[in-house]
Amino acid sequence: MKALVFDKKLKLVECEKPCPAQGEALIRVTLAGICNTDVEITKGYKDFSGILGHEVVGVVEEINAADRSLLGKRVVPEINFGCGNCRWCVRGLAGHCPDRRTLGINGRDGCFAEYFTAPLGVLHEVSDTVSDEQAVFVEPLAAALEIVEQLHIKPLDRVLVLGDGKLGATIALSFCAQNLNATIVGLSQSKLKIASSQGVKTALLQDIKTDRAWDVVVEATGTISGFETALALVRPRGMLVLKSTVASGKELNLAPIVINEITVLGSRCGPFEPALRLLDKEKIDFSPMISGVYTADRAIEAFEKSREEGVLKVLIKFS
Amino acid sequence: MKALVFDKKLKLVECEKPCPAQGEALIRVTLAGICNTDVEITKGYKDFSGILGHEVVGVVEEINAADRSLLGKRVVPEINFGCGNCRWCVRGLAGHCPDRRTLGINGRDGCFAEYFTAPLGVLHEVSDTVSDEQAVFVEPLAAALEIVEQLHIKPLDRVLVLGDGKLGATIALSFCAQNLNATIVGLSQSKLKIASSQGVKTALLQDIKTDRAWDVVVEATGTISGFETALALVRPRGMLVLKSTVASGKELNLAPIVINEITVLGSRCGPFEPALRLLDKEKIDFSPMISGVYTADRAIEAFEKSREEGVLKVLIKFS
Repeated sequence: MKALVFDKKLKLVECEKPCPAQGEALIRVTLAGICNTDVEITKGYKDFSGILGHEVVGVVEEINAADRSLLGKRVVPEINFGCGNCRWCVRGLAGHCPDRRTLGINGRDGCFAEYFTAPLGVLHEVSDTVSDEQAVFVEPLAAALEIVEQLHIKPLDRVLVLGDGKLGATIALSFCAQNLNATIVGLSQSKLKIASSQGVKTALLQDIKTDRAWDVVVEATGTISGFETALALVRPRGMLVLKSTVASGKELNLAPIVINEITVLGSRCGPFEPALRLLDKEKIDFSPMISGVYTADRAIEAFEKSREEGVLKVLIKFS
Repeated sequence: MKALVFDKKLKLVECEKPCPAQGEALIRVTLAGICNTDVEITKGYKDFSGILGHEVVGVVEEINAADRSLLGKRVVPEINFGCGNCRWCVRGLAGHCPDRRTLGINGRDGCFAEYFTAPLGVLHEVSDTVSDEQAVFVEPLAAALEIVEQLHIKPLDRVLVLGDGKLGATIALSFCAQNLNATIVGLSQSKLKIASSQGVKTALLQDIKTDRAWDVVVEATGTISGFETALALVRPRGMLVLKSTVASGKELNLAPIVINEITVLGSRCGPFEPALRLLDKEKIDFSPMISGVYTADRAIEAFEKSREEGVLKVLIKFS
């Protein structure tokens, strides 16, 4: 099968179709999405080598288990595969299992290939009403929903999402789809249009007053300066949600957290079920985020495209 | 009256006894305590000039209001005086009023003097069973209790307090007095003894395994390296309470907050009523923290003493 491998450099290779282990399924990939994390990995993040990719939709072709109910079904996989035995796994928090493997990110081949394998338990069936082009966004949408899984955002809360990239737009759209009072803030009127065209309030960063009037501020710029801006905007006793990992540090004064008794909440991967529910009800349309769809043969080209300034989601069609 | 004033430098001066404004009381100071914040102010923190001091017990000698019930009573004052009108003050959160004055810290003369004034509403009567030497610790004890005011720490939670100074010891003692499962960690066996002699579990930093086994970690070292240690010790989805303001920043990687979905909670001044309850029930004995008691005439000397390595609380007796 064709696969996009990273091993010090990116290469499209021909390799063996994987074999599902006990309790696993073999999934034929139909469509996969390139994420910023994939790009970071090609810069050395996580020291990963193997088949890249973790945003995907595909069809179950083989099951190595007694329960064969998902055979032939279209599915999306959660990306963290826990050991199944530790105190995290038994509490349903495989995402925090210290021995977890993460699809295409850590210790496990990913989905930028014609086939990949995954434990049955992480697969979610996609309903017929949801197209591949929407379903492939379920993983980042689930990550956005993790915020409300962790934090009770109230209908009257004033919520600010900092960052008009894919992450910020997805979070803002998810808030809007849940009737929360959210505003997305960015630097580019054209990027903000994706959210505004679906009913999200938008503002340019330069127009935001630092009057500490926001109950919840979500940092989705991936920069330390974004974190500092968030600290300056959130109200005393407010909530600052840190949604993006910042690779390198810089000088940072944490005193405002104490003085204003701010809560900083780290938030990562999220629940697929409510994300699929939003897609099934067509509450969010991800098509304006698609900057290109490439065939598997042009996977390297797709990857190059995804690094370009202003490009949002690039998809790869494997079958 | 005698007063210890900071105005670029520290000086003991003779000045006018203050006059209570409408709604305020005049309090004769019996005993006051020197806090790290006072020392920081003499290094330039908050740009304050005036009479220093905010940890105090005294007797109400005059009241400029209809309600005279506190006249002649021994009292301790909360230190944040709000405007009384803003959305913070009307919610009972004067500590976050943007126009607040803070006793001896910001915009308001403090209590290192024979007399000071304060609004009636911030005064709490001290019961006869509590000595001046214990009552003078109510403000830092209240700050420790702010943690449980903000955060539900459960009986089964494993709680770590990082830092064996006054702040860390006070927090650990308060947790112990509330039957929480707390361990205090520091660098000095002798400092840790203050907590251990009152039943708190202690450990040296070098003996703590970084196995992310702590549900709650309280950073009370006041250093960025303490914050980093706390981040390395707290469990995924755990709570890191930031209790001390760090004056200068340095490089800091925030990614672990996101990856392990940690909540960082800033915590500052706290409620006096439950602090007085702990003192009234003799649940904590602060006398081992007293490194010296000085008369007002020797206030400058007391201040110098408080800067010495290994010294804990230095008290000044004004009457």
